[in-house]
Amino acid sequence: MQDNGIDVLLITDPANMYYLSGYDAWTFYVGQILVVIIDEEEPMWIGRDQDANGAHLTTWLDEKNIIPCPEHYYHSEMKHPMGFIARLVHLLSKSNRPIGVEMDMYYFTATTYASLKKELPNATFKDASTLVNWVRLIKSDQEIEYMKRAAQLVENAMTTGLEKINPGVRECDVIAEVYHELISGTIDYGGDYPAVAPLIPSGKETTALHLTWTDRKFNSNDFAILKLAGCYHRYHAPLSRTVSIGETSAQIKDLAKLCVEGLHAALETAKPGVTCEEVEAAWRKAIEPRGVVKDSYLGYSIGANYPPDWGGHTANLRKGDPTVLQPNMTFHMIPRLWYGQLGIEVSETFRVTETGCETFADYERKLFLK
Amino acid sequence: MQDNGIDVLLITDPANMYYLSGYDAWTFYVGQILVVIIDEEEPMWIGRDQDANGAHLTTWLDEKNIIPCPEHYYHSEMKHPMGFIARLVHLLSKSNRPIGVEMDMYYFTATTYASLKKELPNATFKDASTLVNWVRLIKSDQEIEYMKRAAQLVENAMTTGLEKINPGVRECDVIAEVYHELISGTIDYGGDYPAVAPLIPSGKETTALHLTWTDRKFNSNDFAILKLAGCYHRYHAPLSRTVSIGETSAQIKDLAKLCVEGLHAALETAKPGVTCEEVEAAWRKAIEPRGVVKDSYLGYSIGANYPPDWGGHTANLRKGDPTVLQPNMTFHMIPRLWYGQLGIEVSETFRVTETGCETFADYERKLFLK
Repeated sequence: MQDNGIDVLLITDPANMYYLSGYDAWTFYVGQILVVIIDEEEPMWIGRDQDANGAHLTTWLDEKNIIPCPEHYYHSEMKHPMGFIARLVHLLSKSNRPIGVEMDMYYFTATTYASLKKELPNATFKDASTLVNWVRLIKSDQEIEYMKRAAQLVENAMTTGLEKINPGVRECDVIAEVYHELISGTIDYGGDYPAVAPLIPSGKETTALHLTWTDRKFNSNDFAILKLAGCYHRYHAPLSRTVSIGETSAQIKDLAKLCVEGLHAALETAKPGVTCEEVEAAWRKAIEPRGVVKDSYLGYSIGANYPPDWGGHTANLRKGDPTVLQPNMTFHMIPRLWYGQLGIEVSETFRVTETGCETFADYERKLFLK
Repeated sequence: MQDNGIDVLLITDPANMYYLSGYDAWTFYVGQILVVIIDEEEPMWIGRDQDANGAHLTTWLDEKNIIPCPEHYYHSEMKHPMGFIARLVHLLSKSNRPIGVEMDMYYFTATTYASLKKELPNATFKDASTLVNWVRLIKSDQEIEYMKRAAQLVENAMTTGLEKINPGVRECDVIAEVYHELISGTIDYGGDYPAVAPLIPSGKETTALHLTWTDRKFNSNDFAILKLAGCYHRYHAPLSRTVSIGETSAQIKDLAKLCVEGLHAALETAKPGVTCEEVEAAWRKAIEPRGVVKDSYLGYSIGANYPPDWGGHTANLRKGDPTVLQPNMTFHMIPRLWYGQLGIEVSETFRVTETGCETFADYERKLFLK
């Protein structure tokens, strides 16, 4: 905040709210905010009246710093929760100080910003869109432990999903089993909801990566990608694998091998001191001699998150990203190759170690055949 | 659009995009838009390059109206997808016409709006936040059929959840079974992901309505609310029930009865010609003589939606909402009463009929005892 000349920081990203205060509830669909004031000991949580008890139960904040906003500010054409929040900032005599807002965060809508500016005409606003996200880039050992637990969940779910995919089985029945595995977790701990639903593009939909499941039945000559994440205490470990039902062509098998080779080349490159774009370049170098075209977006920082996205919105494994890898940065690397109407994806979530990197999951990297 | 003097409508709400074009994918976490131009036959879908195939597969749009935005516009500090979209609007010679934008929709961030204004300095922008939402208020028979199917899913999931809740069972294991039921669906059709995760506030968390599950075990003197929605082709039918493990106090039992009485009073009031606030008043009238305080937010319009919210953001069953009920409007009515640290909720999703209303689910209304 000091580096950016920000005295008051208004946090609306639920993952940033969680990181700073512990607040964890499905309430991000209504106006809520964490106010961080540079010379105050604690942030303030401001949210809907009926959710204040959730803040008491999940945050480390003192009771006086949990401020319920009356219900009638919500879902109203006349009022906006930001009006209440702005008045509070004013009451705290902070309204003429530089205020940082997360301009490009989901849940900080154009109206939210307009309401804020209207109520605080003397304030100077600064874009602090990914200020806290960048702080979260390097994980603590505790966060790494959460991601390891998430990885255990996704391994189990992937095994269940791959087992379940068979001719005559509906996509929805595969995903039902996957969800069950992700949520019930292990004997030692349960799983949390992933920020993105499990995806299972199949057949010609494997080139349409973000379609969700249907109740279509797999046929005896089918193809699917399972794109899942385990989630533990909001920390994610995504993992993708591709499966062919029945025999597939030599080209597809070669392509799958190439995808795994590219993945390995990129993972071998990832270590402290190397940049994000160098990791992507290693992938591209491994696949380009074989004439395969691929966009340059190989992955992204990953950790705690909420719907609709589990990506960190900071460092990306792609051309032009100069971020230098450091120990305990964590990424989801998603090599993808397309062949006509079929897509192949073999992804890994990894952390940068002192000397290289290690994946969270330990899962065979290949095209699965059934 | 004509009534609002809007020539070009930029739709960013995924449920509105779905309603108008059929587009259905988990891609709302990146810039995507449906452009509706008042004198063009078809809307245009503009989204991320890798998702254009999903638009081909799910929409009824002609191929020429599916426009992929290059990958390098995304997750960039230099560019914004809205820059690409704005240029396209300009190329279409529409940039000096009145443009409607969904100012207060999730996924239309302050930055999105700023980018748009910067690229189209001659355009006039109008707030069209809930323009399409209001069009969606009255459901077609097809939509009602989807909600009936969703209701079948939630009935099954509620039965499974209530059966599974027992001393020594973890919350996550109950939710795992609930998810399985919601997604695997029936023999005839599968279920879709609900826009809000299944919620199961328990113990003192029953007054913190939007906390998600943990791996805490239920004890032999516990209390929980199951707050679920079935979802079919994005159409929701939510249902809440409260359960007490072991014997509970006479006060709680009385409160549960009162909650159901209030629900019945409100349902009996709901019919064409009555206003939303009159429905809420009937609930309040039924409970107020018994001295129970309750905020005035009794429910909201419901239908197709995407995370993070299944509410329609239009008509609300609460004080001050003059919306007149008409046949095939659909609402989720959520009577809630609190007693100290315990909360009771018994909710129903209903449609307005020609002469009254009918609930989608057929599920016993009471405090469940185990």
